[in-house]
Amino acid sequence: MAGFKVRSVLVTGANRGIGLELVKQFLEKSNPPEWIFATCQDPEGERAQQLKNLVSRHPNLAIVALEATDPASIKAAATRVEEHLKSSGLNLLINNAGIVRPSTLESETPEDMSLVYATNVTGLLLVSQAFLPLLKKAAQGTPKPGLSCSKAAIVNISSECGSIANLIAWELVEVVSYRCSKAALNMLTKCQSLGYEGDGILSIAVHPGWVQTDMGSTGSHQAPLTVDVSVQGILNVLPTLSKKDNGAFVNWEGKVLPW
Amino acid sequence: MAGFKVRSVLVTGANRGIGLELVKQFLEKSNPPEWIFATCQDPEGERAQQLKNLVSRHPNLAIVALEATDPASIKAAATRVEEHLKSSGLNLLINNAGIVRPSTLESETPEDMSLVYATNVTGLLLVSQAFLPLLKKAAQGTPKPGLSCSKAAIVNISSECGSIANLIAWELVEVVSYRCSKAALNMLTKCQSLGYEGDGILSIAVHPGWVQTDMGSTGSHQAPLTVDVSVQGILNVLPTLSKKDNGAFVNWEGKVLPW
Repeated sequence: MAGFKVRSVLVTGANRGIGLELVKQFLEKSNPPEWIFATCQDPEGERAQQLKNLVSRHPNLAIVALEATDPASIKAAATRVEEHLKSSGLNLLINNAGIVRPSTLESETPEDMSLVYATNVTGLLLVSQAFLPLLKKAAQGTPKPGLSCSKAAIVNISSECGSIANLIAWELVEVVSYRCSKAALNMLTKCQSLGYEGDGILSIAVHPGWVQTDMGSTGSHQAPLTVDVSVQGILNVLPTLSKKDNGAFVNWEGKVLPW
Repeated sequence: MAGFKVRSVLVTGANRGIGLELVKQFLEKSNPPEWIFATCQDPEGERAQQLKNLVSRHPNLAIVALEATDPASIKAAATRVEEHLKSSGLNLLINNAGIVRPSTLESETPEDMSLVYATNVTGLLLVSQAFLPLLKKAAQGTPKPGLSCSKAAIVNISSECGSIANLIAWELVEVVSYRCSKAALNMLTKCQSLGYEGDGILSIAVHPGWVQTDMGSTGSHQAPLTVDVSVQGILNVLPTLSKKDNGAFVNWEGKVLPW
């Protein structure tokens, strides 16, 4: 972690939970990024208050409006980020925004299937498409060979709930729309790993653990992991990733998970 | 195959390709089902002509209107099938309807992501929900223990393109929306296998091979498998499936595929 220097990072869904903690821990690094872009749906709203408090103390933090289900909003966000970065690229894109809707196999609705997929899969695809030119620019601007998160990377925050091989906690939460979306996101990550490796961009799916956030508290069961420990883990794993990990599915401790 | 007796089977997307061939080969069996329900979007339209020709010769075949992205249409289809079956249940639901849209990672659109998912995943979820009471009734009406396709089963026609572990033919067809939908469908199948095992219903995802159909001809490459051989294979595999296969992902030759 000590030697892990990223010049620029963007985190979606950054106004709370894991996204907010990622921003905080990047800011607190001894060698913080030159630019941290924290995106959320409504930067002017009450729910962005914690981000706004951080901005007042950290000139390297910028809050950017981004609604993952709105292609125009995503394109506008990419334009704003490019203005900040001037001639340099974006090194690290952390696609963290996501939603879950409580459901069972029998109560699952087409509306929730559609909304959860649009947010958790299509949104991440569109964000990656929009920021691809900036990621390519970062890769081209880094002379070192191979792939790494400090060069250029797409980190998709997935979930072990998307593991088809091991349907964890089925008896606690069925959440079919969420599980299907995360399996699809793992597929998207694998596609990105093949599609973008030639551009020098690493793609990875990360399970942050079952974390004590608003989202992690779906159902009546207490999540075992604090957001602080989860994000510390993620930030320890990212610097270890290289070409051999491209397209993999790992957890916050770096353990490879089965599809 | 010879001893494989299914009293009733429903095939979605049955007016062409693999669906139509499934219907034909079920009709041609020496011990055909008492009822074969062939669903398609528009039974009165020109594209259902081959099904209509079959109906005139086979009184055990019924064509039923079903549009997989329309919940009202799905419910109406279930009601119609129930009227035909009277007091008995539905043994075998073959969710075959599906679409593919040509695309690359960079050209993929939110519209296609949404449409392909609605058809290939949400549609199958809704069809299974709607026919669940009839599948349960079939299971309850079959005294033998365990799970089988002649007792009660959901067969989801998936694709090896949905295998995250082995991204086949990426250099030929990227089709990101299709791959993501089939990975999600494999997850749905696994969820169904856990959710419905207690009801005596088997759930399985089947890759039919890369078949010479309209759909298999996406891109400029010739599919290697005839629809006849693919469907013969599927109809040989179905009778071999039992509780140990519940939730698995197999191809037309019965080989287990990786997630």
